[in-house]
Parts: sequence; structure tokens; C-alpha cells
Amino acid sequence: MADKFFSERNLKFLLYEVLNTQHLTKFETFANHSRQMFDMVIDACAKLAGDLLWPCFEEMDKNPPELKDGRVHVHPSVKKIMKEAGDGGWIGLRFPEEHNGEQLPAVIGSACEFIFSAANYSASVYAHLTAGAAHLIISFGSRELIGTYVPNMLAGKWQGTMALTEPQAGSSLSDITTTAIPQNDGTYKIKGQKIFISAGDHTGADNVIHLMLAKIEGAPPGVKGISLFVVPRLRITDSGQLVGNDITVTQIYHKLGYRGAPITELSIGEKDDCIGFLVGEPHQGLRYMFRMMNEARINVGIGAAGIASAAYYAALEYAKARPQGRKITSKDPALPQVPIIEHADVKRMLLFQRAVVEGSMSLLLQSALYADLDNAGEGEGRERASLLLEILTPVAKTYPSEMGVLSTSQSIQCFGGYGYCEDFPAEQYYRDVRIHPIHEGTTGIQGMDLLGRKIMMKNGQAFKLYLDEIRQTIVQAKKLPDTAAYPEILENALRTLEKVTQHLISVAQSKGPEAYLADATLYLEMFGIITVAWQWLKQAAAALKGLQNKKSKKDIHFYEGKLFTFKYFFEYELPKIEGPAKRLMSEAHLTVEMQAEHFND
Amino acid sequence: MADKFFSERNLKFLLYEVLNTQHLTKFETFANHSRQMFDMVIDACAKLAGDLLWPCFEEMDKNPPELKDGRVHVHPSVKKIMKEAGDGGWIGLRFPEEHNGEQLPAVIGSACEFIFSAANYSASVYAHLTAGAAHLIISFGSRELIGTYVPNMLAGKWQGTMALTEPQAGSSLSDITTTAIPQNDGTYKIKGQKIFISAGDHTGADNVIHLMLAKIEGAPPGVKGISLFVVPRLRITDSGQLVGNDITVTQIYHKLGYRGAPITELSIGEKDDCIGFLVGEPHQGLRYMFRMMNEARINVGIGAAGIASAAYYAALEYAKARPQGRKITSKDPALPQVPIIEHADVKRMLLFQRAVVEGSMSLLLQSALYADLDNAGEGEGRERASLLLEILTPVAKTYPSEMGVLSTSQSIQCFGGYGYCEDFPAEQYYRDVRIHPIHEGTTGIQGMDLLGRKIMMKNGQAFKLYLDEIRQTIVQAKKLPDTAAYPEILENALRTLEKVTQHLISVAQSKGPEAYLADATLYLEMFGIITVAWQWLKQAAAALKGLQNKKSKKDIHFYEGKLFTFKYFFEYELPKIEGPAKRLMSEAHLTVEMQAEHFND
Repeated sequence: MADKFFSERNLKFLLYEVLNTQHLTKFETFANHSRQMFDMVIDACAKLAGDLLWPCFEEMDKNPPELKDGRVHVHPSVKKIMKEAGDGGWIGLRFPEEHNGEQLPAVIGSACEFIFSAANYSASVYAHLTAGAAHLIISFGSRELIGTYVPNMLAGKWQGTMALTEPQAGSSLSDITTTAIPQNDGTYKIKGQKIFISAGDHTGADNVIHLMLAKIEGAPPGVKGISLFVVPRLRITDSGQLVGNDITVTQIYHKLGYRGAPITELSIGEKDDCIGFLVGEPHQGLRYMFRMMNEARINVGIGAAGIASAAYYAALEYAKARPQGRKITSKDPALPQVPIIEHADVKRMLLFQRAVVEGSMSLLLQSALYADLDNAGEGEGRERASLLLEILTPVAKTYPSEMGVLSTSQSIQCFGGYGYCEDFPAEQYYRDVRIHPIHEGTTGIQGMDLLGRKIMMKNGQAFKLYLDEIRQTIVQAKKLPDTAAYPEILENALRTLEKVTQHLISVAQSKGPEAYLADATLYLEMFGIITVAWQWLKQAAAALKGLQNKKSKKDIHFYEGKLFTFKYFFEYELPKIEGPAKRLMSEAHLTVEMQAEHFND
Repeated sequence: MADKFFSERNLKFLLYEVLNTQHLTKFETFANHSRQMFDMVIDACAKLAGDLLWPCFEEMDKNPPELKDGRVHVHPSVKKIMKEAGDGGWIGLRFPEEHNGEQLPAVIGSACEFIFSAANYSASVYAHLTAGAAHLIISFGSRELIGTYVPNMLAGKWQGTMALTEPQAGSSLSDITTTAIPQNDGTYKIKGQKIFISAGDHTGADNVIHLMLAKIEGAPPGVKGISLFVVPRLRITDSGQLVGNDITVTQIYHKLGYRGAPITELSIGEKDDCIGFLVGEPHQGLRYMFRMMNEARINVGIGAAGIASAAYYAALEYAKARPQGRKITSKDPALPQVPIIEHADVKRMLLFQRAVVEGSMSLLLQSALYADLDNAGEGEGRERASLLLEILTPVAKTYPSEMGVLSTSQSIQCFGGYGYCEDFPAEQYYRDVRIHPIHEGTTGIQGMDLLGRKIMMKNGQAFKLYLDEIRQTIVQAKKLPDTAAYPEILENALRTLEKVTQHLISVAQSKGPEAYLADATLYLEMFGIITVAWQWLKQAAAALKGLQNKKSKKDIHFYEGKLFTFKYFFEYELPKIEGPAKRLMSEAHLTVEMQAEHFND
């Protein structure tokens, strides 16, 4: 197995040289921190990931969770990891100090999530699901709910979940049927079935706290009738004891990958004895959940980028070590074979992976930075950051996820036949990452979110700010030497994006919403490539600056490597918008016109 | 599990309405056959595939081969399948009558391979590897070798293999070191190690006949010193008994997918007691092997298309049955949910899969038809078919393989979360198909074959014929009503291809072979899309003809569905050449310039 799963050098380049994260400490919220503190956190995270998560990466895949006697038995490392995540303050990293959190910026939290995901994605989700659930409680729950549940969750003793999906309600949340019947004491009796609940039960935690969507009896139909509840696996009696709360794990799913984490099917209130506690106001559940969902979606992107990172470093190590064939210019069989990294096609495959990994991370940290500015900033700057975060969220979820699938596939390809075998880790990365275009809203759902909501929101204000932000980067980049025509190429891509967007809006007006949204997935694909090109232009500017203060040979190679990868992105990836752009400008709406029977034969 | 894995209607449409396969019977070689006979073969094949291969598809994956006491134990179905493949004449389907074959055209053989692969790819390879190995023996072996080995192979009693790869010689075959030492009796002692040998040993066959590459002691270095040998697992004594031939299975590989077939590592002649028999002349081994390799490469394409077909029908069945959400134009939650096939984005995902599967099959049968014309034809027509087969082979191997990976991924996506679970077959198809861009020459190797050899061969004659063949289709299609601007769009794509090819040739002249071939994979990608667009234009012409003789409602839906899929290809897939075309015209050769150290940090 490779001994590297991410690049600390690259992470710090993005944080400090590209995004100037150190400037966040000027905000009151983060005033107790410093760059030094950020570095310490990242170093400690890398150590924990390397010591605890990384060594059981393969083992957790080969020994997946088992449902025995009604309990989900997981790898023994999970308990250790949860304890460390609690003791070390990792679950509460971004929580306010008043809730015993570290009050660190989201961008540092995201960097840590990335490291954990790269080390062992399955192992990383336990703590991060717990943080998400606890965050929901402190954001919208009563003081009592917070006091009862959050401390044990932040300590890593109790697992948190998000319990949304039901058999008949996957992408269509308006159709959930889990019901909540009000009781005289202000609690609710919960009854229903939930599927695909990550970490819905396991032996690594003493209790499981479900943040569950349900409909209060008599609630209005559709999304307007959904409420949010805290529903613990074990509830606390008046005397402080933990007793069963009538939630049964009816099955765990056997999955393609991501096998170190149990995904469960839950039956709730079969004996009419499941108690839930309302979070916030009735019928506001979906709104609350979506505040967290946006964070969860960015975390999906981070997970995908982490897996792709580890797969890339595995392929890179192999490509440097594996001799095979000779340079095309010296085919003499008497010469020794060369390492495959000398072949242009292998360099291309490695550059693709690196461009995806480092481009994705740049976008994800950028998004997290907007979350920080939204959280800690004020006035217009805050509003701007909030809208930019809104428009970038579907992109930050999808680009790393979809490209992570292709990137891990190229990692397999670098290994040749060995990539298909379990002796090397590439095939596991390929299996693990495939969940990301599906969970927390499929790629199709993200496309509709971008084109159907975000582009239009506040009269197109978010889209205007997005274009403005990129154009600022272009103006700066044009002043630099050595970026050649690339800033202008990005400007042309933006003009294409504007033209396509205008065209689609005219389609919406003339042909209605179905034709407008039919190719939203393609629009998102194109949007994602342009967004990551912007991030690569920012990285190129920072690398050129780094080269000006030339230091060690190592630094020079790093910055030059960055510039090669930047050029790779503009030469090989950005042109990929041409296909979808051409399609999106077409007047043929065949996916609307074609009917189900045309698939018969 | 879905109850359909391929469309017989589509297969017959391609064979008789698009390719006019029935006309092959005018050649003497196939004069004993008729369309009726072809249909009987296909029907019998579909029955065998459905009765014997399909039922154990999942079971063979979940119970992969095991190495115990030196033997590879496979699923009990393998023995039955081999017996049926022998008894039913399936292994000898394309063999000449003089060798007890059925002397059927390659295009019918390919249709059958497709059906078997779609039913159960792993199960299909045993017979087809045996056919490939036996074909090598009858093509180049002595009468004695043929008499000794071929009958038991065609009877399905003895397994055949192709034994090329060694630990230090994967893509670089010139580096094999397995040696053959001449003995006084004309035989050779073989010594060496082979890896990744499919069906290199198993309990479903009484013997294994390796067609093995080795170097005779003192042979010239590189590919010019490679010879081909028959090396049986058990050799025949003078008294006719089978005794061990000193070949040991040292391990079997645990693989991502394709688990029903054992891939073995072999140690040959450890005790200096392994006898091999030279096939044909010394030092001609690679040339012999490559005659079969081209057939093997088309078979890889067929395998990928078969898997993608089964994945598509699984997704289609699910999409018709699964209710989720409502039409975007009627979001009232009181209305019932609609089957997901009603959503435009789901139709797009299904159309993508259908376009890949039916486009790939069209190309593969077209290639097989050229093989038949090369085999049975005469004079100029034969020469033309031979060159067209040469230039199409890397495309027919790669397009279905690379697109099969994406197509099965979209099948998973249609299932949502269920697609990621083992309860549905999509995840197995996704795992199974990933081998295809790797085995029998990786995609990178195919790109170099196309651009480095085939485009240039005979002064560009193959490429000229290819363009001519497509332009004939365009001219015909322009005469039809209802193909709109699509023929002209394909003509434009051909002009782009010519321009890119010219540009690359000028790069070869000015910058040498490394820059010329650096993006051969992208060139192949572009070439593949255009080739399949051609096949879709041919299908559209046939569908329009079919519609003119309107028959049942079912027929009308079929032909209209074909036309929708044709339009899909031209609207969504053909524009994907724009990205690679732009890249290939660029003067930035960064994958040549970048050095290994630029990947350090």
C-alpha cells in the first residue's frame, strides 16, 4: 500500500497562498486563532488520520458491518476513532465556544475532513455525521434538547444521523409518511420506516441520535407538512437510565463500496413505543434540514476529493516504480525498460487525476471560505458570500463526485491489470467513490437545484456575483506574465456560459419548465468545469508568485508542477464544455418528447 | 433480477435491416447457410444463454474460483456450460467444416458472443478462449498438433488459453523471458512465469491447452525472437495417458469483478519437466498471436457491449416500475408519484445507455462483417474489407469498453441508492465491465495502434477507405426525408477529423513521434464517437425504411425509438468530439515536456 494519501504541501498552498485563509483571524469570531493554530490543527489531523484511520482502510472494507441479534457490529477501530474524535475536539471543531466547540473556521474544518476522508472515507463519516446532527440541534433545538444530547455527541459517545429517506420517498421527500402523534407531555410518538440511514446503529457508540423527518398527524400535504425530530435509539428515563426506544434495524445494505460504514434500514415504533422530540417549530423540518444539507453536500464533495486524492497518490507511486516499455524515441529492446511515468499517456492520466483532486479541493475550500464569511462577516460582504455559497453548493457537491469516479478509474488504468486486483488499493477507491454522485441528492437533483433555483434566485443576483468573482480573477491574471492566453480563454468560456444561460431562460419562457430543466445535468457539468478552471487560474497566479520568491529546488518543482497542471486543465479539461454547450443551445427537446413506449421493442 | 439482458429485436434489426447479413450466403464459404439458419442459431443461443448462463450470473460472482491443493475450483456450472458449448457446436461455430466446425459467418458468431456475454460475461469466456486458442492451432499448427488438440477443445473437454503476459512484460511483450530449449525429438523444454492467464486452470475442463509465447534459446532480442508454443497442462504419453506437464498455478487473482472466471499466475517448468510444441515457424510467435489478438480485441468490445446491454435492461425495467416524484409541470403532492422513466433526466440516462449499447453492437457487427468479407470475399472487395477491419479494430475494442464503464455507471445512477447495493445487479455489471479497457491491450495501447500504425498503414489507404465508407452512408442518408441536418453534421465531423489528422501528421514531422502520439488516446476517443455516429446514421436510414412499411404498433414504437436514439447520439454524443478536437489542434505538448519530478511536492 502507498504511504501517502494526500499532500500537506498542496493543502497549505491552497489555504495560505491561494485563499489567504490566515486573514479570517481578523474577524471577531476567529480572533482567538492564528495561522500557527491552523497549522497545528492540520498537523494533528494528519497524524491522527495516519495513525488511526489509514491503517484499517483495507481491513474495514474486507470486514464490513454485520447485523447480529438486532445490533450492527462494526470494526473495533470505530469505537477508538469515535473516542479520539471526541477527546481531541474533532467533532466540535467548528462549533461555537459556548457549546464547547473549538470555533475554528469551516475552511480549516474542511481541510481536516479532507484528510480524514483521504485516509479512510468510511471511518471518517461516523464523526462527521455526528457533528452534522449536533449542529442541527444547536441551531434549531431548545436549550433542553441541546443540554440533553449535544455534550455526549461532541464527546464521541453518541452517534448522530440524518434520517430522511423512506422506501417510497428518496429524491421525493414530499412523500414521506413517517408520522408523529402529539402526546400530552409535549413529546411525539413516532411510527414509520426509514431506509439508507448511515450509521443508523453500531457497536462503536453507546447511543444513536436520529435527526428524523416526520409528519405530525394532520399536517398539510407535501414538503410543507414535514417536521424535524430528535429520535434517540435509547431514550433517557426520568431516573436518568437509558432504555430502548422501539427502533429496530431491519437490515443493513451490502454495498459496492464504502463498506466500513453501516447503512441501515430502520423500523420505528413497531410496538407503538417510540418517543420523538420536536426540533424548533412544527412543519419547518425541511427548511431546518436543508440548512445542514448544504453543509452535508459540500462534505460529500470533500469525501470524493479525499478518495480521489488517495487513489492518485497510489497511482503516482506505482507509476514511478513500475518499469514497462521504452521511450517511443528509443525502442531498442537491449535498453532497460523505463518507469511508466516517462510515457506521455501515463503523465496525462496522472495530470487528469491531479487536476481533478487539486481543482476540487480548491473549489471546496473556496466554498468553505464563503461559509466562513457568511458566518463571521457583516453587511454586503456577508450577503455576497452567502449567495456565492448558495450557487456553488451544487457544483461543489457534484464536480468532485462525478470527476472522482473518473479519476479513480484512471488510477486503476495506471496500474494496468494490477489495478483490477484486490492486491492494490485502486479498486477499493473506485468502489468507495461511486456513492458520491448518489447520496445527499443525486447529480440530477443538483442540476435542477443549480438551474431551477440558484441561477434564478434573487433575480439572478447569485449568478451575477459568481461571474463577477471569476472576472476579478481574470483581470488580475491578465496582469501576470506567463499565463499566456489562458485568462482570455476563461473569459470566452464565461461568455459561452452566459449565452447558454440566456438561451435556456428563453426556452423556459417559450416551452415551459420541463424543456428548460431537461438538460440541467449537462448545464451543471459545464458550470462545474468553468468553476474549476477559475480555481486553477487562481492557483496559477499563486504559483507564479511563489516562483518569483524562488526558494529550494523542491519549491520550484512544486510551483512548476502546479503550472503544468493548470495548463493541463485549460488544454484538456476546459475544452470539454464545448460538447454540452453545443447541446444546450439546440432546439431539439427529444428527452421531453420521447415517451416510455419508445423504449419498448 | 430483470428478466431481459438483450434485445433480440434489435439484434435482428442490425443483422438484417442495417447490415444485410443475409447477403453473405451468396459467398461460397457460407453457401450452405440461409437467413433461416442464422435465425435458428441465434434463437438457440438465446435459449442456452437464458437457461444455463443467466441463472448463475450472481452466484458465480458471489462464489469465485478458489485455489485448493494446486487446482482451481470453479462453480459447477462451468463444466455444464463447457459441455453444452462443445456438444452444441458453439465453440466451433466459425470453424471450417473440414475441422468439424459450423462454418458460420463471424457476424453470426459475434451476435452469439454478445448474447452469451450479456447473460453472464464470466461464464462466456471459457468457451470463447478455447475457440481462440484452437483457431490459432488450426491456422498455424501442424496437422499433428491439430489432430492431437483441436477435437477435444472443440468438444469443450479441454480448455484453451492465451499465455502472453509476464511480471516484467505486460504491455511490453518484447520483454518476455520465458524460454524454450530445443530437445532432440523436436519438442522444447519450457521454463518461465506467466501472469494474468485467464482460465489458466480449472475443474470445469479435463485439460488446459496453453498457447504460450516464449523465446527459443539464442533467439534475437525483442519481438523478433518470440515464438508460439502449445503447452498443455497435462501432456499425452506415448501410451496415450495424460500426465502432469510441470505447470503450477502459484496464485489466482482476487478481482474487482469478472469473478466467475479464474485469472491465474503460472509457474512453468520448475522441475525442468515442461514440454512445449512449436506452432509454425520459430520467431513468428507475435505475428501469429496478433492474427488472433485482433479477433480477441473485437471480442473484448462484444463482452463490454453485452454487459452494458444487461445493465441497460435492468435500469430500464426499474425505471418503468419505480414511482418517484412528479412531472415538473404538476407538482401537487396529492397526485400519485410517476414512474421515474417519465422524468426527462432519467430518459436521458436511459438513452445514453441505449445509444452506447446499440451503437457499439452496430460497430462490432460491422467489424465482424468486414472479417467475413475478408475471409470469404475476393480481390479488391476483400482487400478493402481487410483494411477497414484493421482500422476499426482498436475502435471496436475501445469504444464499447470505455463507454461500457460509463454506461453501467449510468445504470447504477438510474437505480439511485439501490444501484449501490448488491440486491440489484447494476453494481456487478459496473465491476465486471471495468476489465475491458485493460485486457487485450489497454486503451492507451489501442490509441497508439490507431494513430501510430493504422492511420499511416499502406500510405493512409485504410483511413481513406474509412472516410469513403462513411461518406457513402452520408450520401445515401441525405436522400432520405426526416434525417434533417444530421448527415451534414457528420460530414462536418469528418472534416474536423481530417483536419486534426493532418495537423498531427505535421506535428510528427516537426516535433517527432513522442509529440505525435502523446494524445493518441484522445484521438481514438474522437475517432470512436465519429465511427459510432456513422453507425447510428446507418441505423436511422434502416429505421426510416422500416417505418415506411408500417406494421404493428409495436414495430412503429421500435422504429420511432430507434430514431429518438439516433437523434440523441447526434445531439448529445457527437458534440463530445469538440473538446478533444480543440485539444488535439493545440501546440502545447505539456505531457511531453513535464518531467517526473514535477509530480513531487
